Amino acid sequence: MSELDEFFEKVITVKWGEGKKSVDIIDQTLLPGTIKRIQIRTKEEIWEAIKKLRVRGAPAIGVSAAYGIAVVANEIKADDYQTFYKEFRADKDYLASSRPTAVNLFWALNRMDDTVKANRDKPVSEIKQILYTEAEKIRDEDVQISRNIGEIGFKLLQDLKVDGEELGILTHCNAGTLATAKYGTATAPMYIALEHGWSPKDMHVYCDETRPLLQGARLTSFELSNAGITTSVQCDNMAALLMKTGRVKIIFVGCDRVAANGDAANKIGTSALAVLAHHYGIPMYICAPSSTIDMKTATGDDIPIEMRDPEEIKSMWYKEPMAPASVDASFNPAFDVADHRLFTGIITEKGLCHAPYEKAFRDLGIQ
Amino acid sequence: MSELDEFFEKVITVKWGEGKKSVDIIDQTLLPGTIKRIQIRTKEEIWEAIKKLRVRGAPAIGVSAAYGIAVVANEIKADDYQTFYKEFRADKDYLASSRPTAVNLFWALNRMDDTVKANRDKPVSEIKQILYTEAEKIRDEDVQISRNIGEIGFKLLQDLKVDGEELGILTHCNAGTLATAKYGTATAPMYIALEHGWSPKDMHVYCDETRPLLQGARLTSFELSNAGITTSVQCDNMAALLMKTGRVKIIFVGCDRVAANGDAANKIGTSALAVLAHHYGIPMYICAPSSTIDMKTATGDDIPIEMRDPEEIKSMWYKEPMAPASVDASFNPAFDVADHRLFTGIITEKGLCHAPYEKAFRDLGIQ
Repeated sequence: MSELDEFFEKVITVKWGEGKKSVDIIDQTLLPGTIKRIQIRTKEEIWEAIKKLRVRGAPAIGVSAAYGIAVVANEIKADDYQTFYKEFRADKDYLASSRPTAVNLFWALNRMDDTVKANRDKPVSEIKQILYTEAEKIRDEDVQISRNIGEIGFKLLQDLKVDGEELGILTHCNAGTLATAKYGTATAPMYIALEHGWSPKDMHVYCDETRPLLQGARLTSFELSNAGITTSVQCDNMAALLMKTGRVKIIFVGCDRVAANGDAANKIGTSALAVLAHHYGIPMYICAPSSTIDMKTATGDDIPIEMRDPEEIKSMWYKEPMAPASVDASFNPAFDVADHRLFTGIITEKGLCHAPYEKAFRDLGIQ
Repeated sequence: MSELDEFFEKVITVKWGEGKKSVDIIDQTLLPGTIKRIQIRTKEEIWEAIKKLRVRGAPAIGVSAAYGIAVVANEIKADDYQTFYKEFRADKDYLASSRPTAVNLFWALNRMDDTVKANRDKPVSEIKQILYTEAEKIRDEDVQISRNIGEIGFKLLQDLKVDGEELGILTHCNAGTLATAKYGTATAPMYIALEHGWSPKDMHVYCDETRPLLQGARLTSFELSNAGITTSVQCDNMAALLMKTGRVKIIFVGCDRVAANGDAANKIGTSALAVLAHHYGIPMYICAPSSTIDMKTATGDDIPIEMRDPEEIKSMWYKEPMAPASVDASFNPAFDVADHRLFTGIITEKGLCHAPYEKAFRDLGIQ
C-alpha cells in the first residue's frame, strides 16, 4: 500500500465497517487533536453523527447517509416488500431530520429511496444488496468528480512548477478529503499530484485558518500535513502578505454555489481573497462540482447569505470571552460571493471554465 | 461630568493614584471580561505592569513609564544630587528593561532623565516636582496629538454624514484610548465627534477582531461600546463584505511606522484592507502621529516585519489546539505595509496629507 493509500485509509471520511455491518467514519469533532475512527451501526448512531458534525461537508454527508441507510435497511426483519418499505421509509425520514438544511443529505437519501422503489418486484434480500451497491455508486461518483477536478488542477500546477522549488498554494476553509468521499475539491489537485508521482515536498500549501470556525486550521492543515505535504496555517488577514511576497503562486478554493455568470459563493473570506488575488496577479480557481452550478441564479447578488450565531465570533473555542458580552456581532456571514471578474477560472469535473461563464457552462452541457 | 468624561475616567489607560503616590492604570490583561483599575507604586510593580502588557500601546507605555519614574523618584531618600541621580538612573534602567523593543518607553524615560540632568543645580525636592510636571507634559502632548488627529478625522466624518442615518466606520486592531493617553489615533475622530455633540448613535463602528491577538475584539469594541457608540465586531475576513454591501463608508487605522513615500506599516491585515478599500472605493485614512513618520525610510519595502510566536496562531486564547501541533505556523507577521497608492490619506497631528507624501510631509515641517 502506498503512503498516499495509507493516508486515505486513515483519514477517509466514510468507509464500510467490518462485514458491511456498520459505517466507519473519522470523528471530525475530535480533530485535530485526536484521530479516532468510529463504527456507527444503528439509525440513532448515524443520526447523531451527522447532527453533531462528526461527519460534515456536503458530499461526505451524502455518502455517509447512503452508506448508513444501506446498513440500517439490511437489519430490517420484514421479508415482504410492503413492510420492508414502510420501515425503510421511516428510517430514511428519521435520518433526513438530522440536518434540515443539508441538501446533499436529502439528495442521497432520496436516491436510495428511488432505488428501493425501482426494485420493488425483487426479493427484499436482493433489494438490500442493491442498496449497498447504490451507496457505493454514490461514493464512486463523488470520487470521480473530485478526481476530474484534481486532474485539471494538477495541469495548472505543472505549468507553474519550477524544478527544485516548492510550489506555494493557498487554500481557504476545508474543501478537502474530510468534506468529500476521497480527494476533496480544492485539495484534489494536490492529492492527484501525489498520485502522479510528485513528492509531498514539491508543494507548500498555505491554509487560511478560516475564522470563525477554523476549518482551515483544524481540518485542512490536518489532512494535508498527514498526507506528508508541506503545510502551513496562517490567520486569514495574513494571506495578502503571502501573495505580496510571492510565496503563493496559485489559489484553489471550493464553493457552495455558483451563479450563471460565474459569481461563486463560498466560505466567508473568499471574496476578499478574490480581490487580493486580482490585485497581486495571482491565479485563483474555484473548484466546483457541476452540481453546485445553479444556472437559474443569474448573479451572485441573487444568492442569499446565511447569517450565523454571533457567539461563533465572540466566544466559541475560547477559554475567555473574545469580545465584551454586550457588543454586537450579528454580522456573522457564513459565506460571501467572489465576483467572477476577479478570479481566473472555475474547475468542474466536466472541464475548466473561463469567462464568459454562462456560455462556458452551457458548452460543457451544464444546464 | 459629561458621559464622555465619565467614560474616560473609567477606561483611561493612565492617571495619578491618590496623592500622586502611585500610578493608576486599567489592567488590560483582564479586558474585556473585567474592568479593574490597579495602583502601581514600586518600581517592581511598574516594571511588571509594562512587561505583562497590563498597559500596552506605544504612547500609553511612554506616559506610564514617565508617570512611573516620577512616582519612584519621589520615594528616593537621598538629599544630594549625586546620590539621587545614581538611584534615579538605576531605577530608570530597570524600568527600561521591561520591554526591550518599546521605543516609546526609552524615549519617555530618556526625556525624564534629561529633565533631571537639566535641573541638576536645583534642590532634589524641586527636581522631584519638576519630574511630575514633565510626566504630565508628556501626557498632555500625547492628548494634544490625538485631539488634532481627531479634529481632522471628524471633518471627514461630517462630510460623509447623512441626517438620520448612522455612519458606518471600520477600524482594525486597537489604536484607541487604551493605546494612548486619551483619544487614541484611529478612534480619535469618533471621540472628538462626541465632544462636538454627535450622538453615539450617529456612528456605527465595525471593529475587525484582528487575529491573532484579537485587539479589535477585546479592546477596541470594549472601549467604543463603553463610550456608548454603536459597535460591532466581526472576523477580519468579513470586512470585505461590509464594504461591498455599503455598510462601511470610511476606514480609520493607526500605524506603527510610515515611510517617506507614505507606505504605512500597521497591524497585520492592514494591507489587505487597503487593497479592499481601493477596490470598493471606500476612503481609508492612516492616523499617524508625526513621530511615526520616518523620512529616512524610503518605502515600505525597507520596513522589517516582525515575525511572532506561531503559538499565537495555533493555540493562544483557545481551550483546545486550533491546529495540529505538528503543523507549521511560522508565518506569523505582526505587521504588514499598506501601499500608499491604495489608501486615501495620512492624518497627522500637523495636518492631513495626500500623495505625493514626501512633499506633503515636508510641507508640514516633518523632516
